[in-house]
Amino acid sequence: MNNDTRKTLEALERGEISVDEALTRIKTEPFEDIGYAMVDLHRKVMQGAAEVIYGESKTAEQITGIVDVLVEKGQLPVLVTRINEAKAEALAARHDIRYSKEARIAVIGDQPEPDGIGPIVIATGGTSDIPVAEEAAITAETLGNEVVRLYDVGVAGIHRLLAHKEYITQASVIIAIAGMEGALASVVGGLADCPVIAVPTSVGYGAAFEGLSALLSMLNSCASGVACVNIDNGFGAGFIASRINHMQIKKGTEK
Amino acid sequence: MNNDTRKTLEALERGEISVDEALTRIKTEPFEDIGYAMVDLHRKVMQGAAEVIYGESKTAEQITGIVDVLVEKGQLPVLVTRINEAKAEALAARHDIRYSKEARIAVIGDQPEPDGIGPIVIATGGTSDIPVAEEAAITAETLGNEVVRLYDVGVAGIHRLLAHKEYITQASVIIAIAGMEGALASVVGGLADCPVIAVPTSVGYGAAFEGLSALLSMLNSCASGVACVNIDNGFGAGFIASRINHMQIKKGTEK
Amino acid sequence: MNNDTRKTLEALERGEISVDEALTRIKTEPFEDIGYAMVDLHRKVMQGAAEVIYGESKTAEQITGIVDVLVEKGQLPVLVTRINEAKAEALAARHDIRYSKEARIAVIGDQPEPDGIGPIVIATGGTSDIPVAEEAAITAETLGNEVVRLYDVGVAGIHRLLAHKEYITQASVIIAIAGMEGALASVVGGLADCPVIAVPTSVGYGAAFEGLSALLSMLNSCASGVACVNIDNGFGAGFIASRINHMQIKKGTEK
Amino acid sequence: MNNDTRKTLEALERGEISVDEALTRIKTEPFEDIGYAMVDLHRKVMQGAAEVIYGESKTAEQITGIVDVLVEKGQLPVLVTRINEAKAEALAARHDIRYSKEARIAVIGDQPEPDGIGPIVIATGGTSDIPVAEEAAITAETLGNEVVRLYDVGVAGIHRLLAHKEYITQASVIIAIAGMEGALASVVGGLADCPVIAVPTSVGYGAAFEGLSALLSMLNSCASGVACVNIDNGFGAGFIASRINHMQIKKGTEK
Amino acid sequence: MNNDTRKTLEALERGEISVDEALTRIKTEPFEDIGYAMVDLHRKVMQGAAEVIYGESKTAEQITGIVDVLVEKGQLPVLVTRINEAKAEALAARHDIRYSKEARIAVIGDQPEPDGIGPIVIATGGTSDIPVAEEAAITAETLGNEVVRLYDVGVAGIHRLLAHKEYITQASVIIAIAGMEGALASVVGGLADCPVIAVPTSVGYGAAFEGLSALLSMLNSCASGVACVNIDNGFGAGFIASRINHMQIKKGTEK
Amino acid sequence: MNNDTRKTLEALERGEISVDEALTRIKTEPFEDIGYAMVDLHRKVMQGAAEVIYGESKTAEQITGIVDVLVEKGQLPVLVTRINEAKAEALAARHDIRYSKEARIAVIGDQPEPDGIGPIVIATGGTSDIPVAEEAAITAETLGNEVVRLYDVGVAGIHRLLAHKEYITQASVIIAIAGMEGALASVVGGLADCPVIAVPTSVGYGAAFEGLSALLSMLNSCASGVACVNIDNGFGAGFIASRINHMQIKKGTEK
Amino acid sequence: MNNDTRKTLEALERGEISVDEALTRIKTEPFEDIGYAMVDLHRKVMQGAAEVIYGESKTAEQITGIVDVLVEKGQLPVLVTRINEAKAEALAARHDIRYSKEARIAVIGDQPEPDGIGPIVIATGGTSDIPVAEEAAITAETLGNEVVRLYDVGVAGIHRLLAHKEYITQASVIIAIAGMEGALASVVGGLADCPVIAVPTSVGYGAAFEGLSALLSMLNSCASGVACVNIDNGFGAGFIASRINHMQIKKGTEK
Amino acid sequence: MNNDTRKTLEALERGEISVDEALTRIKTEPFEDIGYAMVDLHRKVMQGAAEVIYGESKTAEQITGIVDVLVEKGQLPVLVTRINEAKAEALAARHDIRYSKEARIAVIGDQPEPDGIGPIVIATGGTSDIPVAEEAAITAETLGNEVVRLYDVGVAGIHRLLAHKEYITQASVIIAIAGMEGALASVVGGLADCPVIAVPTSVGYGAAFEGLSALLSMLNSCASGVACVNIDNGFGAGFIASRINHMQIKKGTEK
Repeated sequence: MNNDTRKTLEALERGEISVDEALTRIKTEPFEDIGYAMVDLHRKVMQGAAEVIYGESKTAEQITGIVDVLVEKGQLPVLVTRINEAKAEALAARHDIRYSKEARIAVIGDQPEPDGIGPIVIATGGTSDIPVAEEAAITAETLGNEVVRLYDVGVAGIHRLLAHKEYITQASVIIAIAGMEGALASVVGGLADCPVIAVPTSVGYGAAFEGLSALLSMLNSCASGVACVNIDNGFGAGFIASRINHMQIKKGTEK
Repeated sequence: MNNDTRKTLEALERGEISVDEALTRIKTEPFEDIGYAMVDLHRKVMQGAAEVIYGESKTAEQITGIVDVLVEKGQLPVLVTRINEAKAEALAARHDIRYSKEARIAVIGDQPEPDGIGPIVIATGGTSDIPVAEEAAITAETLGNEVVRLYDVGVAGIHRLLAHKEYITQASVIIAIAGMEGALASVVGGLADCPVIAVPTSVGYGAAFEGLSALLSMLNSCASGVACVNIDNGFGAGFIASRINHMQIKKGTEK
Repeated sequence: MNNDTRKTLEALERGEISVDEALTRIKTEPFEDIGYAMVDLHRKVMQGAAEVIYGESKTAEQITGIVDVLVEKGQLPVLVTRINEAKAEALAARHDIRYSKEARIAVIGDQPEPDGIGPIVIATGGTSDIPVAEEAAITAETLGNEVVRLYDVGVAGIHRLLAHKEYITQASVIIAIAGMEGALASVVGGLADCPVIAVPTSVGYGAAFEGLSALLSMLNSCASGVACVNIDNGFGAGFIASRINHMQIKKGTEK
Repeated sequence: MNNDTRKTLEALERGEISVDEALTRIKTEPFEDIGYAMVDLHRKVMQGAAEVIYGESKTAEQITGIVDVLVEKGQLPVLVTRINEAKAEALAARHDIRYSKEARIAVIGDQPEPDGIGPIVIATGGTSDIPVAEEAAITAETLGNEVVRLYDVGVAGIHRLLAHKEYITQASVIIAIAGMEGALASVVGGLADCPVIAVPTSVGYGAAFEGLSALLSMLNSCASGVACVNIDNGFGAGFIASRINHMQIKKGTEK
Repeated sequence: MNNDTRKTLEALERGEISVDEALTRIKTEPFEDIGYAMVDLHRKVMQGAAEVIYGESKTAEQITGIVDVLVEKGQLPVLVTRINEAKAEALAARHDIRYSKEARIAVIGDQPEPDGIGPIVIATGGTSDIPVAEEAAITAETLGNEVVRLYDVGVAGIHRLLAHKEYITQASVIIAIAGMEGALASVVGGLADCPVIAVPTSVGYGAAFEGLSALLSMLNSCASGVACVNIDNGFGAGFIASRINHMQIKKGTEK
Repeated sequence: MNNDTRKTLEALERGEISVDEALTRIKTEPFEDIGYAMVDLHRKVMQGAAEVIYGESKTAEQITGIVDVLVEKGQLPVLVTRINEAKAEALAARHDIRYSKEARIAVIGDQPEPDGIGPIVIATGGTSDIPVAEEAAITAETLGNEVVRLYDVGVAGIHRLLAHKEYITQASVIIAIAGMEGALASVVGGLADCPVIAVPTSVGYGAAFEGLSALLSMLNSCASGVACVNIDNGFGAGFIASRINHMQIKKGTEK
Repeated sequence: MNNDTRKTLEALERGEISVDEALTRIKTEPFEDIGYAMVDLHRKVMQGAAEVIYGESKTAEQITGIVDVLVEKGQLPVLVTRINEAKAEALAARHDIRYSKEARIAVIGDQPEPDGIGPIVIATGGTSDIPVAEEAAITAETLGNEVVRLYDVGVAGIHRLLAHKEYITQASVIIAIAGMEGALASVVGGLADCPVIAVPTSVGYGAAFEGLSALLSMLNSCASGVACVNIDNGFGAGFIASRINHMQIKKGTEK
Repeated sequence: MNNDTRKTLEALERGEISVDEALTRIKTEPFEDIGYAMVDLHRKVMQGAAEVIYGESKTAEQITGIVDVLVEKGQLPVLVTRINEAKAEALAARHDIRYSKEARIAVIGDQPEPDGIGPIVIATGGTSDIPVAEEAAITAETLGNEVVRLYDVGVAGIHRLLAHKEYITQASVIIAIAGMEGALASVVGGLADCPVIAVPTSVGYGAAFEGLSALLSMLNSCASGVACVNIDNGFGAGFIASRINHMQIKKGTEK
């Protein structure tokens, strides 16, 4: 039950609304049913974040329909993840979007000024991990964070990472992205004194097993202070990194 | 390369030390070699955290030997995780320890005053998850956090969780701990607006496959803002939660 | 041995048929051999259900051939599952079919009036699960059940599900369909007091491992009263739900 | 939200209770917090079933503590599953229990008269599956069902099963329990016209992989009308079978 | 070392050949090196079987090149397995072949008269398993066996199999082919008193995991007298079945 | 339906028995229900083999009970597999047994004269595979076969195997038993011209994964003429090898 | 820290450079940042090997960009692995390349004279493994090794391998490449007295599981002296084989 | 065929021996059959290494029996791996052994002077990996190598490894041993210019899956020049490292 429940109960106590009205309000306010989707209209209030649509297995029509409702209600910005070019074009026909083909991500609405407590550093093991990194980066930027990109600093050439150690030290959160053996997360975790969000990628072949190798590595990191999201889940990493980077703002607002 | 490198280089430039001395300093200061372990003496400075010893496959002699060095150098508090009763008794014969048999954790040194930005809420799906939860709780408390315990609020009785929603709302970080299907992380993730660290446990049988089921669930959480640590890794969750809860302090100190 | 055995034995006892005839009857009545398939003609009698053809790896010719035999013997309705558009068109050239492209299902024969003991509620975690849900829904409707569709009520926004709790309460059977972490089954299972059939879907990526994550979740559900069918098996869920919903009718008929 | 919500809201509207009281009621009635467990006191009302305690990883003290609360509130009967002899003895010291060592199950409270729509048939592939079968049988009997035991009728000797086909025909629900290759579920599913709940067991060795082989078999059953529970989950099968067997009673009561 | 070794040694002893010649003979007779393949020219003598080429990952040129050598040396018949239509056409341009598109198999050379001790019965669970069955059937026929095809007799309709029990009884070897849960092997194994070769197929979806489910079932068959080959390996089953069916001939010849 | 069915039908036709009697005979003759087991009394007739009891998860009482029935009906010999010393002692108290501790197998009844078409060769990769090999050997000997033991001839020292090639050549069937990488089956398969039954063992560690490595190797054997049984299933290999070795006798008898 | 560090420190001590210059040198010399990649310019010095670019998931533009930098700095030869024809054509438009379509490898720069201590023998189980073998062979040749190709000598025809035993004996390193059951590595390992590098390939189907079967076999090799690289990793095998083959040269140079 | 074959053939040509004698020699010289084992007596000659007995699943009697034969034939030194204390004591009763309880390894015979081309460096990620490291170290020392132990230098504290970089640079071969995420191999591989043999260990818990995580990491190492042995296979790593370290000696001897 959210805070609206108390307001609804108080309105009921004051006789302003009926019991049925109270029941209706509690149930129906937070989302709008458009047949194939329950569009969530108060997630922004509840979670302080942009709206996100997972585009992978939705049709262009479904994506556009959900965006229509959100834009109409002023729920901006909206992030659409895992959206291919064809769907992005269909969406662009009705809405003003910024689209990254590499990251397969579309944004509707302005990019806010960064207001977190520090930069989010996004490091990748190799060049091949960049699409996932860009998904994380655009997500974090859209949610109001400064992002530092540190690409192709994998552990096979440890000096490349060590040469940039000041970024590691100054980061508010680090997102470590790697495929193959995923060792980057452990090395970064050993160097950093901030939270590290590890993202395994499906880069590799054979015994990489579509990212399983990197995933297990990251879950078993011998460095403390590392937590992991799903394989190739750049969005998820950017989202939780932003949450971490905005905690004191939320707390300041609350009191 | 850490900040000491600059200091060493400046001393070299001023002619206070030789090249060989400079090389020696860079290499040898940070740890002490006691034969079977390189005891890390500047991790506390680097990472702002207590020292941690993974006790599982170390002998009582090895654990005690490492603690001896740390205590002598004043590196307190020290956490020893996954330490059974026999080893804890051996350790207690030489050092003053607080020991939780349930969490298999020993602490040497005083518990600090909580100074994070808010409470860390630790929720478990069932009673059987409590040992992992206590490992997380004692870790977080030893690292200077207030902990709220919310045990046995699994999703099969969703009202038990909803009844405590204010804790979810006020948390600075939530640690969601569950075995079996691990659905708690997703439900908590959907209700919370702070980072959620998910801990799968090996509670369950059959197709729980020693925690694999819960692990996969948590990695695939449909809620945003959830990251995951290893199966039964209460310590890891408590550690990163503390990091998140102290970011603004570190940042405040830095500037 | 089915009831026909007794009839055959009685005819033999009365001398109406020979031993060889008796042996032949016992063996050959129940199906018709059309070379590549043994078309089962008394399954309807035995199991009280429509005929079902699994279309995935059958050619259009094979599907049409089997339907021909069933229609000729009056075994209606016939469900063809996992049939793509091309095969459906070939089938439509010879028979009157209703085809759902989304659910990849074709029906030959009229849809019966619902006669189960109550509605079957079909809930999905997301929009992407709808094709599987429609396969379940059309199957259940074709077998004589009222279906209530409750789509996109995943646990990341638990209020969407709670707002429709009356449907959960009134259901005769609930089919809970979800991919990713599959937590919907547990939450629904905790709220319901009727049997819940869980269907994991292959929706998701990375550690979803083509539905494995959701499957394990559902098998390990901490809620009682949940049983599971194969990944993406909407048909199987609709079929057993119908069986459950018609038990008292069968029992009434029997006595 | 359950029906009590409406009652509470009506009391609030009539001014009989305050807003705070209303909030408290909604939250606190359904369970009692005893520190290590939230004992659920209205599950019986909600789900029409006995209370169940999963004893595996709970201490004797925890089990006894939970039973104490349930017995005090009159929530009988209580089933304790996966409880070993030592814990059962501890429980027997305070409560009157019926204990099956083979099924590792304890029951507190009287066994009710069977009132479902027909018998539940429990079939096993071999002698080794009997412990799981007894867990299912005792669960079903405690929940008010007549149980027919049909043990050691595995498919390697198909005539043993065929000889008992009348039980298959008359069953209201069948629970098919088998390890190794788990083929029993498919054969029973092909013979039956009622719902079949399949229980894979961990009986076997080598490539049985602790029940995985039987589990996959049962999930992939080529027979329609089969759903599956977790490996060795006799309780879960007995529980959902009872639900299915009592649906018309619930429906009759509701109207 | 084969029998030719003795002959070579005897020739050496008689002074007919030199040591170097002896070494050369031992090494070079049995195969011809054509660069990309060591074509085995005495396998027929050693193993009493046709030559077999696994066509899957060989180019049309490689296949034709190997066939050229074999035909030239009179090593007929030759079986080419897993050869697609394009490669088969290329082969047909140079050699006289019989090609089954369904079984993806090509045969060069005449089909011999059956001379085994009895018929090989090939049973499939469903229509979708027929391509694998045909690969087995054509292999067995080419190796001199009578084949009885018994398709679509899966265990979900056990009467279809029981109606043909005399074939089961009269078989010299039975090949049981099934996907999904693969239960056919166990049921056939229970009815038969001859060796049963089980072939799991990749027919199915979801938790069938590309044939893994059927494979595990068949390996764990509770019926004695069942052995298993690789998923979809119709050729392997036909080959070993032929071996079994010709043992007494080989033995008769030997003495 | 077995041959008794015809006899029963003929008796019914002659009026010697009633329909009910006919039904009873068909159902009840083949086994005896002793509560926890359906003891199969006509398997010997049907399958021409000794009775086998899988002792692993049966109690000493259950094993003895089943043996009692079989001995009383004269169904000898009886093999009890996977029976530990304690259970064997309990069995020996009532019956005359031959027991192999290494193979964990007990035999009741005399060992017959070998009457197959040739020797069964049992080869192992190492010394550690001998217990599985002895289970196969005793099984085969009890079923009337001559057995040649060829132990510790693994492929790492290929000359050890090549030195015994005449056994490979003269065998009627070869059982190839190996753990670790299981390569023995392929090498033997390439040398032999008789059927090869491969038995993977759980010998090894690490990535041997309890026999999985050897199992996959043997299923993927590049040699033709190899089929596989379950990990450590010495009994199964001995049983099917005996079947193969007796086919011509069965066929001779039949005609 | 490499040797340059000492030089930089000495320059600093001599007052030739400032502290900031020293820091800059240490950090920036070894690679050049071209945005999407940190091109490593001193790996050749450090590791004594050619530069290698993993082309699989890099665009043609990225590959060409990296090659541009390397060629400009004179870092030849450059190997580009897993590069398809289209990308190779794009690269050939700017640089002089030797391209093997079969091995998907491109080389820029001259092939050096072989200078290792002996030949590297590359053996494959079958014709289908040749692409992986060619990747290994071209890698080894480009790094200055003599390569002996021994293709299609799989263990199913062990005489093909034994006939070439002198190559096995004379090799400096052997690379054993096989799919399916991967037994070649063990047999070669048993015959050789030099290090054996095993390469599992994804050749096979069904339970080969994309190379997993061969991988596990090779890891569990009962022969000593075998180590393994990733599935299909011809490059990795060629690279480490070259390292082994050049160790004494490096050692000679060092002293 | 080894060189003895030529000698035997020459003796035959000279008429010194008969054909049968020639056959006998070829077959029987290289090993001695002691019933349960074929003790290999010319492996030392063939492979230039000590004899090795895998003690895990052999009885004390079997181990002692094999050692007896080897000692009698002067095949020293003998390594017995994976031998527990009880078996070691039994062995010590008959032979003079050096036993390491930690490494579970026993050596019979003198330790030779190191004669490889340089030191073998053995690095471990943590203290818990030391038993595996000692198995590798003792193996390498017994085979004539100088060993440098570098324990507890895991990547979570990268400065501990970097401080010892001169050992990495001077090594002839490096053995990198680590559990959990196994990242040590990649970091070492990136720093080294000699071959790196990676050994995953079963150290860790949860998603470490008994060493699977480290194994996959090491197989997918992004550093070139790394090959992998089985989980916990310290012996295998020490053996191949010794082979690599002695290649030039072998080659020198050969010419």
